[in-house]
Amino acid sequence: MPRYKLVVEYDGTPFHGWQRQTNGWSVQECLERAVHRFCGETVTLHAAGRTDAGVHALGQTVHVDLERAHPDYTVRNALNFHLQPEPVAVLAATQVDTEFHARFSATSRHYRYRIANRSAPPAVARDRVWHVPVGLDSDAMHEAAQVLVGQHDFTTFRAAQCQSNSPIKTLDRLDVGTSGEEITVEASARSFLHHQVRSMVGTLKLVGEGKWQVHDVAAALASCVRARAGPTAPAHGLYLFKVDYD
Amino acid sequence: MPRYKLVVEYDGTPFHGWQRQTNGWSVQECLERAVHRFCGETVTLHAAGRTDAGVHALGQTVHVDLERAHPDYTVRNALNFHLQPEPVAVLAATQVDTEFHARFSATSRHYRYRIANRSAPPAVARDRVWHVPVGLDSDAMHEAAQVLVGQHDFTTFRAAQCQSNSPIKTLDRLDVGTSGEEITVEASARSFLHHQVRSMVGTLKLVGEGKWQVHDVAAALASCVRARAGPTAPAHGLYLFKVDYD
Repeated sequence: MPRYKLVVEYDGTPFHGWQRQTNGWSVQECLERAVHRFCGETVTLHAAGRTDAGVHALGQTVHVDLERAHPDYTVRNALNFHLQPEPVAVLAATQVDTEFHARFSATSRHYRYRIANRSAPPAVARDRVWHVPVGLDSDAMHEAAQVLVGQHDFTTFRAAQCQSNSPIKTLDRLDVGTSGEEITVEASARSFLHHQVRSMVGTLKLVGEGKWQVHDVAAALASCVRARAGPTAPAHGLYLFKVDYD
Repeated sequence: MPRYKLVVEYDGTPFHGWQRQTNGWSVQECLERAVHRFCGETVTLHAAGRTDAGVHALGQTVHVDLERAHPDYTVRNALNFHLQPEPVAVLAATQVDTEFHARFSATSRHYRYRIANRSAPPAVARDRVWHVPVGLDSDAMHEAAQVLVGQHDFTTFRAAQCQSNSPIKTLDRLDVGTSGEEITVEASARSFLHHQVRSMVGTLKLVGEGKWQVHDVAAALASCVRARAGPTAPAHGLYLFKVDYD
């Protein structure tokens, strides 16, 4: 069966996350329905990352097996046609080797977290950024973030419901930058624990406010105690923006 | 009476434009209601630009007279509190001289138009950009745009319902740039005719597609015939992003 890799963008706002749910509308169901409308096939999609409710994607990556082969552009355009009016779009569809697996072949995942750091609530970017009205010191946040880079036991930054086999992960990059009133946190790793990025961002916010110092972040990481992390940052500031494969 | 200048951001999607309407919800009404909830006063706001239905603002500028003076930050914060949950935010409130008029004192207005130039429809930026799937030559668009810069009779690019006294305007700047898959058109002038920016963008799109050349734009401008302009670009790609005052 021909296998297709799909790069997918979505606004996470109206969805109960990536994964099919019994009690809510998911991005996965939305895409599987579009595949069915396109070619009549009932498929199961596999994604690189199971984004939570409200989390957005600019480059979620998915694979699907179809019974019949179609030109790549036909798959992309037909799915986009059948996805309307849902806020989900297939940016690229490419036929790939059946060895390819969207989740297991991924070599790196890149997330971006957006913070609107200003008094006024976001209007145009509502549901797209975390609104933090108190002024944050992004340089201090970046410095503290470097404590988390590398291979560590990230139990402190792991959700209770995390299904990962091990809490030991290698964080390749955690960069905090600014652009006007926006602070951006970019995180890259082969894989992440559930809620890891949001939990790290919530912790770095404490540093930005001056409530925590670098050594508090180091101590929280070393403690391996979930309660030592800062409050988890909200879902709607988070974007899965790219997934790398060999 | 103390006069306040307000810099306002809004998502134009749910509104029937800036101006109060008998048959729909406007940004003006929304802000006037927030003023009433804040201080009990029934006011009329004056804005630098009457944006159409669906047009967004990052820096619309407004003035309002209140009976009592309040600290600037109180006006801003109280209005933002009472604006919730509408997608309208006051970025800054400043008490100004009563000579100041948001519309008549403006020395320059800056608009930005965003085009998503890619096959896939926008998902995260839906209602925020104009989706043009056919590849556009932004360099050709920029070159053609320069024909429109300067003082001209812009009748060709004027809506039938335009209330301006004269079709003669001075366009200070019309720049076309790209960033990834997005093409941006930035227009600056002391004032614009109704639909002028959207009409110019729709015309430049014809150049980007290769259907028109620079001389076609020059001929359309010179003709002063509305039917000679390209189709008006949709409202939801347009942003009033800044208004200058002396």
